[in-house]
Amino acid sequence: MYSSNTHSLASVFQQAEYKLGGHGPRNMDILKEAFASVDGETDADMYGQGKVIGDLERKMAGYLGKPSAVFFPSGTMAQQIALRIWSDRKSSKRVAYHPLSHLEIHEQRGLHELHGLEPVLLADADRLIRLDDVTGMPEDVACLLLELPQREIGGQLPAYEELEAIAVHCRDRGIKLHLDGARLFEVLPYYGKTAAEICALFDSVYISFYKGIGGIAGAILAGESDFSEESAVWKRRHGGDLISLYPYIVTADYYFDRRVDKMAHYWAGAEKAARLFNACRRVVTVPEVPVTNMFHVHIALPPEQVEDALVSVARASGVGLSSYVKPRGEGSCFELSIGDRLDLIPEEKLEQAFKLLDETLG
Amino acid sequence: MYSSNTHSLASVFQQAEYKLGGHGPRNMDILKEAFASVDGETDADMYGQGKVIGDLERKMAGYLGKPSAVFFPSGTMAQQIALRIWSDRKSSKRVAYHPLSHLEIHEQRGLHELHGLEPVLLADADRLIRLDDVTGMPEDVACLLLELPQREIGGQLPAYEELEAIAVHCRDRGIKLHLDGARLFEVLPYYGKTAAEICALFDSVYISFYKGIGGIAGAILAGESDFSEESAVWKRRHGGDLISLYPYIVTADYYFDRRVDKMAHYWAGAEKAARLFNACRRVVTVPEVPVTNMFHVHIALPPEQVEDALVSVARASGVGLSSYVKPRGEGSCFELSIGDRLDLIPEEKLEQAFKLLDETLG
Repeated sequence: MYSSNTHSLASVFQQAEYKLGGHGPRNMDILKEAFASVDGETDADMYGQGKVIGDLERKMAGYLGKPSAVFFPSGTMAQQIALRIWSDRKSSKRVAYHPLSHLEIHEQRGLHELHGLEPVLLADADRLIRLDDVTGMPEDVACLLLELPQREIGGQLPAYEELEAIAVHCRDRGIKLHLDGARLFEVLPYYGKTAAEICALFDSVYISFYKGIGGIAGAILAGESDFSEESAVWKRRHGGDLISLYPYIVTADYYFDRRVDKMAHYWAGAEKAARLFNACRRVVTVPEVPVTNMFHVHIALPPEQVEDALVSVARASGVGLSSYVKPRGEGSCFELSIGDRLDLIPEEKLEQAFKLLDETLG
Repeated sequence: MYSSNTHSLASVFQQAEYKLGGHGPRNMDILKEAFASVDGETDADMYGQGKVIGDLERKMAGYLGKPSAVFFPSGTMAQQIALRIWSDRKSSKRVAYHPLSHLEIHEQRGLHELHGLEPVLLADADRLIRLDDVTGMPEDVACLLLELPQREIGGQLPAYEELEAIAVHCRDRGIKLHLDGARLFEVLPYYGKTAAEICALFDSVYISFYKGIGGIAGAILAGESDFSEESAVWKRRHGGDLISLYPYIVTADYYFDRRVDKMAHYWAGAEKAARLFNACRRVVTVPEVPVTNMFHVHIALPPEQVEDALVSVARASGVGLSSYVKPRGEGSCFELSIGDRLDLIPEEKLEQAFKLLDETLG
């Protein structure tokens, strides 16, 4: 957190009657709601075995169009393991990804410290990986990881044709292609493809249950059966093969069923919210027109001023637009992911909030 | 599982009215009971931060008498990390433990594959590590891990004076001492010590919430503050720093409060059950007199015969003595951990079951 106003912005946001992003508060009702209708006599999973974990793994394998899937407690674990497997198979320590990949900036160099892998960073930090970047990679790269959408640049996506060309190139060169699909469900409406169609371009796929789906935590790593078997061994090595993972599995399944078909609706909400932001002075969104339910808001004013503005807007309109602001060069930014909450804001409240934002920033 | 009768034994045990070991079925009521009285508006923990995780970490640090504690999803993760930290500090890859340590037999060589550490195995597989084994260790061992009680040999314990002598030796030689305290609560009555008194002998301590405590999963790694800070970085690297761990934290805390003071009672139950087993022909328990709530049952008959006997006993008396049997040399064995269930068995049923067992094995 950046400035002394931050705490005040966070608490004003917390108390605001309406909130622009997300599905709702991250509180224990998420668990309690999902378990309310669960029969308490249902058997727990045991070390990766049992109906509750097997059923979700089979369901997600089917959804992703892969022969096999393994449930993991986290994406950090699942993705390091995917890259390690591909690295071992090619006997090459080099794997390629974006400079702002989760593996590069949020995992304390776990991929190197635990697996000894060496990243090849493709593209500039502020743009997508392009076919050119991929064709220019060293030959000994074992695996290319692509994140769809690229979260740290606002959730951008390559054209589908470029994705296909990248996949063809990798296949021709014996480079495995791994999908960081933390937000895969969210990209399906834009591409107009099924998850299985997109995943067919990739050798291995990770998806998350707590972004658009809104579960507590948990991930799936999917691929061929031998890949999954190896990944389960690595899950044990990482300490992720918990005696029981059902608290995450039951909630993942519950919220998957409730939200996976709402992604087009969230995307439309993001387009609408981005239009409202872009109509304010000193504000641009990235991307200008969102391609998923998420985007970044860039404001050409220092964080202190933007925080004050967001506090004023929330107090006067009852609408919290963001709980935080980060510095970005001379200006400020924050991230938004649209979920269930947007629909709860009365239209006139939303208009009032953005009118106030424009005036306060102007 | 060994023979074709196993499935039948497991299902007969499952249906038996009474069961000798454990607290109860591993089903989702364990979660539902603990969460029934939780306010759904309680905030989730977020990446290791927040009241729910901080409160339990402080409580357990206090209980264990250590300055700091970190909650982990699993002991596999916590212990590899403890050994890695001590290894890095001494710049030595060598760590020492028992040949039947969890790290050696249940973790798919994670310690080597992820951390590059090389175990020095002390003692023979069928006995405890003794002071002699420790004084004979190579000088460059970074850390000695001791498991109290040693689970795979029936839950045996060294004399407290020997434990103290091992600790003094390690301290004098600059060898860190780590406690695998998966069943630490269970050993306190036998030693007549507090957890803090025992932990004072060790530089780092792991405890588990799903053995005697009966939670869903989860572990604590405790030590000095700088050790904990490092362990939290490694937790992130391992993929264990989940966005929210509260399903395990809330249940750990709930069952800790309900069971931590019942360990002497469970131990007394184990002594009684072991006496009953030892009175049967061809049966000995290891240890003969339990020192915790657990022991192993060795039977000088092949598994098929023992399974048939256990099936007959359960059908005739309604008491399930074990859900499984493993081969051991020419004979058989199984493990028992006494918990809440023993008290539910009427005395005459218990006597009937063991009388039948003796007759069937004789």
